[in-house]
Amino acid sequence: ASLTEQQAGKKGVGVDVELCSAINIDNDTFVERNFTNAEIEYCQSRPDRQASFAGRWSAKEAVFKAISSYGKIASEGAAAPLNEIEIISDDVGAPQVVLSGKAKSAASAAGIKNVNVSISHSGGYSVAVALAQ
Amino acid sequence: ASLTEQQAGKKGVGVDVELCSAINIDNDTFVERNFTNAEIEYCQSRPDRQASFAGRWSAKEAVFKAISSYGKIASEGAAAPLNEIEIISDDVGAPQVVLSGKAKSAASAAGIKNVNVSISHSGGYSVAVALAQ
Amino acid sequence: ASLTEQQAGKKGVGVDVELCSAINIDNDTFVERNFTNAEIEYCQSRPDRQASFAGRWSAKEAVFKAISSYGKIASEGAAAPLNEIEIISDDVGAPQVVLSGKAKSAASAAGIKNVNVSISHSGGYSVAVALAQ
Repeated sequence: ASLTEQQAGKKGVGVDVELCSAINIDNDTFVERNFTNAEIEYCQSRPDRQASFAGRWSAKEAVFKAISSYGKIASEGAAAPLNEIEIISDDVGAPQVVLSGKAKSAASAAGIKNVNVSISHSGGYSVAVALAQ
Repeated sequence: ASLTEQQAGKKGVGVDVELCSAINIDNDTFVERNFTNAEIEYCQSRPDRQASFAGRWSAKEAVFKAISSYGKIASEGAAAPLNEIEIISDDVGAPQVVLSGKAKSAASAAGIKNVNVSISHSGGYSVAVALAQ
Repeated sequence: ASLTEQQAGKKGVGVDVELCSAINIDNDTFVERNFTNAEIEYCQSRPDRQASFAGRWSAKEAVFKAISSYGKIASEGAAAPLNEIEIISDDVGAPQVVLSGKAKSAASAAGIKNVNVSISHSGGYSVAVALAQ
């Protein structure tokens, strides 16, 4: 079967759980390397900044895993910094995935047309699940 | 492309994590507003009632997010009470989703044909993941 | 509609969360009944053996739920020991699912062509999500 046939309906899935307190949001270098300015501004504005950054982080990791599991990802995909996987909020607050740079190239090369993600946090943990299709 | 073509194979995903103790199962008003009689009866009969209610709650939240992320949901969807997203157990104990009222209308309007959900709990947390397709 | 038509694009989803410390990795009987030799060797070689076994366990449970939720599974499916759901790591460390014995028969009988899984752990918990398609 052709690659197109093999991948018809194929889905990649990714999950990530984080102990929220493990994300060091006071480390500016870490934050700026992994979050976009829009994400930083969003998370800083939330009532629970720690949980908000952790949720975004979980979402980025879940998206990365979903893309990687979809198919053979060119090696530059693995090296993509996490700020190339941006999580924005749509007008009703649901998270949307915006890929750029090497993350976008890797997803395109794998034939991924769409990546969905969902985020949740409670107690001391955040969890995110992503689907690449 | 037509809406049908755009949505061919499209999936919505939702995840929810809950600290089980955060669900106040002694608040009758809260319980009755969010759980059906069948759900209450089921959860009350389980060895760990707290975890059972929390798992059901996580499932409802995950389903709500999966439906919402699938497409543009009419505004009444967002206002649907959670008892319109009922989680029943099939004959082998696997959870099944039954939508009614505004939740059902919103899913139908978005072209969703099926919603699957899975639930787990361990330690003090419950997690659920839902797929709308 | 034929079964094939009904199941076109159908997906089964499974999630599992585990308090890592609840997996008794010092119980040889338990470990050997549920993990393959390759899995045991892999988990024993990891820096955090407890989390590694718990992650594998979560993955097996998530895969089992995803297969079970896909369709009517022959009763022998429910009795499949978890070592028939093997989780191996591909060359970049991503988990791959290898079914054997009754688990493989049950998946084939249900028309499942592929099962994807993703695993994560943080703090004291592991979480896995599986898709059967």
